[in-house]
Amino acid sequence: MSWENNIRKVVPYVPGEQPRERNVIKLNTNENPYPPSNAIKTALAATDIGSLRLYPDPAAGDLVEAVADVYGLKKSEVFVGVGSDDVLAMLFMTCFHSGKPILFPDITYSFYDVWADLMEIPYEKQPLDENFCIRAEDYLKPNGGIVFANPNAPTGEFLALSEIEKIVAGNPDSVVICDEAYIDFGGESALPLIHKYDNLVIAQTFSKSRSLAGLRIGFAMANEKLIKYLNDVKYSFNSYTMNRTVISIGAAAVRDTGYFKNCCKRIMETRERAEEEFRNLGFRFRKSSANFIFVSHPKVPAEEIFRYLKEHKIYVRWFNKPRISNYLRVTVGTDAEMANLFACLRTIPGIAEESGEA
Amino acid sequence: MSWENNIRKVVPYVPGEQPRERNVIKLNTNENPYPPSNAIKTALAATDIGSLRLYPDPAAGDLVEAVADVYGLKKSEVFVGVGSDDVLAMLFMTCFHSGKPILFPDITYSFYDVWADLMEIPYEKQPLDENFCIRAEDYLKPNGGIVFANPNAPTGEFLALSEIEKIVAGNPDSVVICDEAYIDFGGESALPLIHKYDNLVIAQTFSKSRSLAGLRIGFAMANEKLIKYLNDVKYSFNSYTMNRTVISIGAAAVRDTGYFKNCCKRIMETRERAEEEFRNLGFRFRKSSANFIFVSHPKVPAEEIFRYLKEHKIYVRWFNKPRISNYLRVTVGTDAEMANLFACLRTIPGIAEESGEA
Repeated sequence: MSWENNIRKVVPYVPGEQPRERNVIKLNTNENPYPPSNAIKTALAATDIGSLRLYPDPAAGDLVEAVADVYGLKKSEVFVGVGSDDVLAMLFMTCFHSGKPILFPDITYSFYDVWADLMEIPYEKQPLDENFCIRAEDYLKPNGGIVFANPNAPTGEFLALSEIEKIVAGNPDSVVICDEAYIDFGGESALPLIHKYDNLVIAQTFSKSRSLAGLRIGFAMANEKLIKYLNDVKYSFNSYTMNRTVISIGAAAVRDTGYFKNCCKRIMETRERAEEEFRNLGFRFRKSSANFIFVSHPKVPAEEIFRYLKEHKIYVRWFNKPRISNYLRVTVGTDAEMANLFACLRTIPGIAEESGEA
Repeated sequence: MSWENNIRKVVPYVPGEQPRERNVIKLNTNENPYPPSNAIKTALAATDIGSLRLYPDPAAGDLVEAVADVYGLKKSEVFVGVGSDDVLAMLFMTCFHSGKPILFPDITYSFYDVWADLMEIPYEKQPLDENFCIRAEDYLKPNGGIVFANPNAPTGEFLALSEIEKIVAGNPDSVVICDEAYIDFGGESALPLIHKYDNLVIAQTFSKSRSLAGLRIGFAMANEKLIKYLNDVKYSFNSYTMNRTVISIGAAAVRDTGYFKNCCKRIMETRERAEEEFRNLGFRFRKSSANFIFVSHPKVPAEEIFRYLKEHKIYVRWFNKPRISNYLRVTVGTDAEMANLFACLRTIPGIAEESGEA
């Protein structure tokens, strides 16, 4: 016997590398290549250092109100957390407590099974089809809850709202979590459906489209009864998750919708050009609805490309997992960063030949 | 049937009131009356807004290193979280996973049973003795883990290290969490014992003695094996809990030990004077080792005093709970705030008589 017998032993999620060296091109964790809204400079400068001795508002009211205003919701329909990971963890803890297996795709955000394992929630993975698409009919079976990302990660594949509605309408006895971390890059949010279905919850984040991965803000939107349950669990875990600066900076950032839309537009334009370049180099991929492209090359193994790029200080993401181990997930950076990426790819023999430049 | 059958239903912890109006005297949530170290001004001003688009260091290395340096530990012996509530929640989740009941005092931080209920950890409360002191022998019985606060809250009572060592040494098969949120106000930390006992973990916070309740930083210190298990659970919950500004500001704050010690000294001096005043007004209390005093009046019910003070915009904490419903927990503020408090108390008839001023 030892105290170690009492320990919850888990295999944690491994986040993408965060290299500390400066002169790298970082296309591996889907960060936004553009800085956050200038509005946060003012908010940050207005920080009253003295007030930091006091606890923040436990309800993070100013931030919740800003999100509610921007999305046309009531404050009681919005929940905020320390990144969408915190929001999703709280949602798993709150909504998937039946003992019945939850359902999610076999290829998706690789944190879903980590949370399920941590919280001892049984789960059944539903295989994506041969094009890496979610089939709504796979989710019309008995379950304890459903979670999927739309657009999905790491594929970038967007599922039509009509398919989502089939899943939500077909599961009135389960909570359906639609994880929309990448929705602002060309997808259509399922948000309007929360007014029709009280079992649907939408999770989003400030980390991608709002250029604030470093600040840790995520949010959930659903009917107020579900949000109340979620807050009860949050207040049973940590009363004060959002600090004073995050509340004020986050509120300022989300209200600057003009800057946000413009950044998303630029990223989508760069994505179009990058898809064209990938095509020219012989890469295979499906149209992305996210701020990344999920590519495979018929001649050069993904792992080889991954290592080659890393040696040249370009970081992309490679998942050593079934079905996708020959793919790379490449975040859409600035035009200059993408030009560097493609220049480097052209120096890989098998790829150069394919592009007719060898 | 409904999706609500799948919901984890809990009764959340209720934090002390955080009134939004400015001109109140706030002695209800044990905040520090003095502003945080000036060192954080520099750290905050150095915030690179552009870098907020990037994820923070998931290991919060700079902050962990600063805590390790200040406490003479290795980085691998330190864990940081979003306030000590986050740290304690993670500790409960990690270390109390045996199915056997955990033990904690009947009168203590009222979040312990909330966490246990949330995570479905069985527990047995051990009654404090008639002086509200922990009896070490109560914790020498089979259990799935032990947690207590030292100094205890809301009593302010300090348990001698020799008693703590009895508990830790007597429970090699359990993790013992010593919650030292208030240790810097005159108590002696059990920290040195972590090098002798691998089942002891110390939790502390920046919220009280470091004047940073608004920033949300807590930390745990233990042997590196226990810290590794804790990090595995943390990385299975949320990869990035500490944001970029918190990491840099927190590191700067903890390194300014001179300012910190001086603030603690001032608070302890004010506490001495306040105890004298409470005594003069006929209040009963035991010597506090924390930044609050737990008082009871023989003539005027605590609830009545609580409401009277609140009407006069002075907030103290009253817990409507067995054994302590006739007590008030009064945070030690500035000398001026305490003078206001005592002036107000003297206008309560039953107290004025007691003080011989009626």
